[in-house]
Amino acid sequence: MNYKIDHVGIAVQSISETVAFFLKTFGGRASEVFESKTDNVRVQFVYYDHQRLEFLEPTSPDSPIAKFLTAKGPGLHHFCFGIQNVEAELARLKAEGFRLIDQAPRIGAEGKKIAFLHPKSAGGVLIELKEITD
Amino acid sequence: MNYKIDHVGIAVQSISETVAFFLKTFGGRASEVFESKTDNVRVQFVYYDHQRLEFLEPTSPDSPIAKFLTAKGPGLHHFCFGIQNVEAELARLKAEGFRLIDQAPRIGAEGKKIAFLHPKSAGGVLIELKEITD
Repeated sequence: MNYKIDHVGIAVQSISETVAFFLKTFGGRASEVFESKTDNVRVQFVYYDHQRLEFLEPTSPDSPIAKFLTAKGPGLHHFCFGIQNVEAELARLKAEGFRLIDQAPRIGAEGKKIAFLHPKSAGGVLIELKEITD
Repeated sequence: MNYKIDHVGIAVQSISETVAFFLKTFGGRASEVFESKTDNVRVQFVYYDHQRLEFLEPTSPDSPIAKFLTAKGPGLHHFCFGIQNVEAELARLKAEGFRLIDQAPRIGAEGKKIAFLHPKSAGGVLIELKEITD
């Protein structure tokens, strides 16, 4: 078990406006824009040194990010641990009684395996697990 | 201007319970516990590789963290950029029309200069600036 912090996810109304603002104000380097059809979100990362923020914009009113924006407004949404085997970790956490949002890994915006844990099991924090290779 | 992501701050009712849970579930390495009399908070970091989460527990009902917990419950509270000169950056941001919570740097839980920017100026995200030396 070797957990790393991969990114902090921020829900926004407009990726183009918010990312332009962050780049202008705090510097950083923007990634390409990814789109996830399953989550109905558009995603862009901004790198600061070797770490990064993830900006999430809904592409449909059904998107979980659209629902979050309606309920809470823009702001911090989740943080993500990078780990080497999402499937094995999900099985372990489930066996330990952890409540999961995703019962099995699915493919996220960057084409990597991801899964979300339920905030009720993690001190109110929405935690994403993402498969990384190193 | 060289911004790095220093940590993600998480508001909790009990540092000892939440940190024990994170260490047991996700591994990581806990710092000592810091206390800030000005903010009425107890603070503990958990390191994952070279990155870290910050857990914040109120020590008084007047604490901004106590107010956050009452309004929103436990969960993600802010993220922190580490920068080399907090005073100069605050002056620059103020000149650019940025809304600040702290008009001047103050000393945070680790004995370093910190300042909070207002979420209204930063896409709903509460951002802390912390002085770092590298």
